[in-house]
Amino acid sequence: MLHRFLVAGSFALGLTSFSAQAQTTADAKTDSVNIRKIYDEALLHGQSYDNLRTLCTTIGARLSGSPQAEQAVQWGKQTMEKLGFDRVYLQEVIVPHWVRGAKEKAEVKSKKLGKTPKINLCALGGSVGGNAKAGVVEVRSWDELAKLPDAQVKGKFVFFNRPFDDKLIEPGAAYGGAVDQRGRGAIEAAKRGAVGALVRSMTSAHDDFPHTGAMRYDEKVPKVPAAALSTNSADWLSQALKADPNLEFELEMSCQTLPEVKSYNVVGEIKGTKRPDEIIVVGGHLDSWDLAQGAHDDGTGCVQSIEALRLLLASGLRPERTVRAVLFMNEENGNRGGTKYAELAKAAGEKHLAAIESDGGGFTPRGFGVEAAQPATVARVQQWAPLLAPYHAQEIGPGHGGTDIGPLKDQVKALIGYDCDSQRYFDLHHTAADTFDKVHRRELELGGAGMASLIYLLSKYGL
Amino acid sequence: MLHRFLVAGSFALGLTSFSAQAQTTADAKTDSVNIRKIYDEALLHGQSYDNLRTLCTTIGARLSGSPQAEQAVQWGKQTMEKLGFDRVYLQEVIVPHWVRGAKEKAEVKSKKLGKTPKINLCALGGSVGGNAKAGVVEVRSWDELAKLPDAQVKGKFVFFNRPFDDKLIEPGAAYGGAVDQRGRGAIEAAKRGAVGALVRSMTSAHDDFPHTGAMRYDEKVPKVPAAALSTNSADWLSQALKADPNLEFELEMSCQTLPEVKSYNVVGEIKGTKRPDEIIVVGGHLDSWDLAQGAHDDGTGCVQSIEALRLLLASGLRPERTVRAVLFMNEENGNRGGTKYAELAKAAGEKHLAAIESDGGGFTPRGFGVEAAQPATVARVQQWAPLLAPYHAQEIGPGHGGTDIGPLKDQVKALIGYDCDSQRYFDLHHTAADTFDKVHRRELELGGAGMASLIYLLSKYGL
Repeated sequence: MLHRFLVAGSFALGLTSFSAQAQTTADAKTDSVNIRKIYDEALLHGQSYDNLRTLCTTIGARLSGSPQAEQAVQWGKQTMEKLGFDRVYLQEVIVPHWVRGAKEKAEVKSKKLGKTPKINLCALGGSVGGNAKAGVVEVRSWDELAKLPDAQVKGKFVFFNRPFDDKLIEPGAAYGGAVDQRGRGAIEAAKRGAVGALVRSMTSAHDDFPHTGAMRYDEKVPKVPAAALSTNSADWLSQALKADPNLEFELEMSCQTLPEVKSYNVVGEIKGTKRPDEIIVVGGHLDSWDLAQGAHDDGTGCVQSIEALRLLLASGLRPERTVRAVLFMNEENGNRGGTKYAELAKAAGEKHLAAIESDGGGFTPRGFGVEAAQPATVARVQQWAPLLAPYHAQEIGPGHGGTDIGPLKDQVKALIGYDCDSQRYFDLHHTAADTFDKVHRRELELGGAGMASLIYLLSKYGL
Repeated sequence: MLHRFLVAGSFALGLTSFSAQAQTTADAKTDSVNIRKIYDEALLHGQSYDNLRTLCTTIGARLSGSPQAEQAVQWGKQTMEKLGFDRVYLQEVIVPHWVRGAKEKAEVKSKKLGKTPKINLCALGGSVGGNAKAGVVEVRSWDELAKLPDAQVKGKFVFFNRPFDDKLIEPGAAYGGAVDQRGRGAIEAAKRGAVGALVRSMTSAHDDFPHTGAMRYDEKVPKVPAAALSTNSADWLSQALKADPNLEFELEMSCQTLPEVKSYNVVGEIKGTKRPDEIIVVGGHLDSWDLAQGAHDDGTGCVQSIEALRLLLASGLRPERTVRAVLFMNEENGNRGGTKYAELAKAAGEKHLAAIESDGGGFTPRGFGVEAAQPATVARVQQWAPLLAPYHAQEIGPGHGGTDIGPLKDQVKALIGYDCDSQRYFDLHHTAADTFDKVHRRELELGGAGMASLIYLLSKYGL
């Protein structure tokens, strides 16, 4: 590549012209200048990348209930205090405490196949431990399971092996079409007398990383162990079952659920200059699965939320409405933090305008998904697209807010999800590969700047 | 991340409605269905990722004139022949042959500083070799150099240390604002009697990779060695010069330019069903710098160009106009292949409609930049944006085509550059880090599908 970039294309994006309903042309000009200030600050002096390095490499994995989760709470509080936010405080949350334990292994035994390869597997979050050696029956749908005669299921492992639908452009949609296997595989397997559930990892990638993630039990059904197989191991097992339908799967896991413990959401606030009683929330979740550093899930969302507030202050754009960065605890296996925040907000009679969440990774920004009761609310956010187009953050439309902010739904005009390029996200999601080195400095800082810009507009104009 | 993606947002992108100038509503429906077919084929059965693996890992670096460049020519020809294109042929091109040589090292000597760290450096492509030990003078602009008294430049190395402007959203624009130092640093240094040029690597990243790339000489000025320092080494040297302005830089390089050799462009063609005399070109460049595998620069462009033709055939969409995939030789240090292709086309009286180039990396697609004499031509391509919006390839506007297709400018209605997310591109560009593992399968295949879709539309409707 020699000259490819010498002409920096100024893209006429074909976007609807900025038909200012609430804003004048002068406003639009001011807003454009102010948003540029936010991006300049982020790109020249951004702090979220360095903050993420600290969170990921000095604390690391921080599942709810773990000592690392508590360290992360202290880190979040101290980081926001040092930035001089008007108020930084903790909200007590009681969280589940599941631990993986030391033993976690599996082996396939088959006289016909002889020596078998290593099975790359991990317990699903919340699973009971246990030892079992049993046959395996593979299914790809609930229907397929329902049609199997009892004799083919009872006393066996059910192997849920429906892959991602690779045709889908959004990997998140493919995730949505497969994750039911992880969520209720153990319940449906146990209902039919199976000894455990083996679930294909939630990814389009073909590799050796098992992906953990939350699973559920039903109190009326026996609790059986549930584990995720890497996609390579799942593909191998599927082939092996064709060669030897009578092979045996030996699973040993020592994971367990301990008593619940006290933890916290961390909240940092900048008081609004004109309407301090109206609150805009921006957040990510502080807990992460136990296998890696929780970099893209969701360290990036936490540091971007803190950074969004810092960018407003550093750019001289103290917001007109009150803005809160919230680091929610326990998104991954309970959403207790999100639930608690909404409960406390309601009990205190607070008035929330909107809530923004970044929980889809820290990749190059694309825009925002708006979840609102009124289509007019979505349209109102969409009219700001031209202001974000120079930064490629203009894809604004109906969408999903986020798990942590979900419980605020009836208290806000809109829940807003930060959207970024997600093609690489599910290669890393809930695996040992979700580490700091997978995050790109400029991609991350651009995301925080986009979030700050939206907050600036929300805080100035309302919804 | 638990539920974040369960709702797959269907984005109303705020794009101008598909005001069919040339197309009816029925056409738009057919086109939408056909483009979906192209993407399905790419995402389910795409071959470009596997082709890239072969090119990068069995051939690797392939600078013009090298044995590997000739292997790449044969690989390209055989790959397209196996796909059953109507015609596959070579176009002879005489190319320069520069070789790095075995010696390439530098050391800073300073009594004041004592032991100094390793300098990460590489010769710029085309540089003469040489040994020199001399003082260093740092500049960040041509103006600064011009104002220095002769005594401060003569007999020294000039150290061109202007960094990327990090405020720019497009890394390519930052590249455009810094690469003049690499291109004419040696000339301007030698004019003032300097013994060599040291140039800060062309990247926003802070790391130890030196970035090579083309540089020029002026026959009227002595040829002095030119080398790139990694950004970390450049930052260190800049600090070291403050501590000891009299430090000495010792450079040893054995690179040289050998006699020119014969090489080839590789062309694969599908004859148009209705207007075979009108030609659409899609291409990338086959040569790559010698330090790595040339994965993103520009293996991805080559395999995507081949794939674009394959996708059309495999989707049952044999094009109405003739389509050629061209793997150009020698983009990096001469553009002889691009020049030759245009010359031969003109000499043969061929009628070219448009040329598309992918030479900005194989990351997630964003859209296309259109370089055309008539604004109406840009608008005509832009009207297809809604068809590409479901695939996030809708950012279409005025832009730059590409180096290889540049010489075709006066023979086509439009030169079109494939645009993708480029935040990571200049971390890798022209370095040892530009390897296959940096390319993401789905990102790459989505790009090829976007290019095939545009070709489908161009071949059906013209411009």
